[in-house]
Amino acid sequence: MNVAVLGTGPVGQAIANRFVASGHAVRMGGRSLENERAQGGAAAHGPQASTADFAGAASFADLVVNCTSGTVSLDALRQAGEDNLANKILIDVANPLTSGGEATALSVCNTDSLAEQIQRAFPQTRVVKALNTMNNAVMGDPDRVPGDHNVFVCGNDDAAKSDVVELLRSFGWPAENIIDLGDITAARGTEMYLILWVRLCSILGTADFNIKIVQGDRALKNAGSRR
Amino acid sequence: MNVAVLGTGPVGQAIANRFVASGHAVRMGGRSLENERAQGGAAAHGPQASTADFAGAASFADLVVNCTSGTVSLDALRQAGEDNLANKILIDVANPLTSGGEATALSVCNTDSLAEQIQRAFPQTRVVKALNTMNNAVMGDPDRVPGDHNVFVCGNDDAAKSDVVELLRSFGWPAENIIDLGDITAARGTEMYLILWVRLCSILGTADFNIKIVQGDRALKNAGSRR
Repeated sequence: MNVAVLGTGPVGQAIANRFVASGHAVRMGGRSLENERAQGGAAAHGPQASTADFAGAASFADLVVNCTSGTVSLDALRQAGEDNLANKILIDVANPLTSGGEATALSVCNTDSLAEQIQRAFPQTRVVKALNTMNNAVMGDPDRVPGDHNVFVCGNDDAAKSDVVELLRSFGWPAENIIDLGDITAARGTEMYLILWVRLCSILGTADFNIKIVQGDRALKNAGSRR
Repeated sequence: MNVAVLGTGPVGQAIANRFVASGHAVRMGGRSLENERAQGGAAAHGPQASTADFAGAASFADLVVNCTSGTVSLDALRQAGEDNLANKILIDVANPLTSGGEATALSVCNTDSLAEQIQRAFPQTRVVKALNTMNNAVMGDPDRVPGDHNVFVCGNDDAAKSDVVELLRSFGWPAENIIDLGDITAARGTEMYLILWVRLCSILGTADFNIKIVQGDRALKNAGSRR
């Protein structure tokens, strides 16, 4: 599969490496063709990886992954081009964090979310929010955190979500640890969780963690009967 | 210890029952002395429990637990009276949820939190945010959800937090599952997590769950060396 990874920071690098390791052709997209980080990253990824601007990466791809900073994602995706994103699955990994440390806040939350903004701006694109609740090192290597822990997906297109679930399984996520939260409005919850996540990073002194939803026996039975 | 439980809904009832079961004297506080739910609840709690208005409950107590609806907590605490709350530990269990279901949102979040609002409005009170990240049935009965899972505390007064940690241990929370998130601004994270929690309730078909922070081996080592 041809994959566009938009965003050339640490998240984009980690995701691009993961897709290359799985045998996909990856084109990393940056703000310009001359983006040095993208070129440096692509060099590390070998012959299966290339670089382009946002539009060049998106036009190449069957699947697009938004790894840009959440506060500039809409602008980056406009540069990628509505036509280049139409009818494609876009995995939105970004969080609209405005700053780091104690002053961390979100540029959109509560009654809206970045993923919803993207879905509204690109109605032909099949947006699936996923992987935004953990460090980039854990996204494609869940065994880095031992035992069971969860990854969330949400979106309005059930077929797109199924494809993303398969991708997550190929990344090493057991099916039972992938939780479908429903439609794209659930991204409010997974993005807002980041404020707790950032504090936990600071308190634990590491980003090498994830959350596990632990259910009571009765709860497990209830959930099973609803699925 | 004399405990005031402010708020006579399901959370207040559950917390009041838990304190009575631990041998504390509990006075439930409602909006008025005639509050029927408070009286009904108190009747169920036996001779160790009584009812009053917010001020009557707060003046009776060594420890105050805010179990009112988060959107009306500041008003309820003003009725309880600044003098009646001064120099006392106040455990803030509330969340500023404006509505239920898909339209759930918070009346304050991101750059502020209910717990911070309470601490600012009552600077003499030792506010500790705790237990707001789970269903009321789990708060005082962590074994209801099997295995390890976490409860968070935060606040500006370390001695108050230590007392609350001891209380949580008396409720059955193992020390290693109680995470001190730091100062009261960490309440932004635990309150904002509620949006994900509400969605999980809906998807799982139950409130009988909690989250566990799962760390990598390296992470555990790092965290240990920082404590």
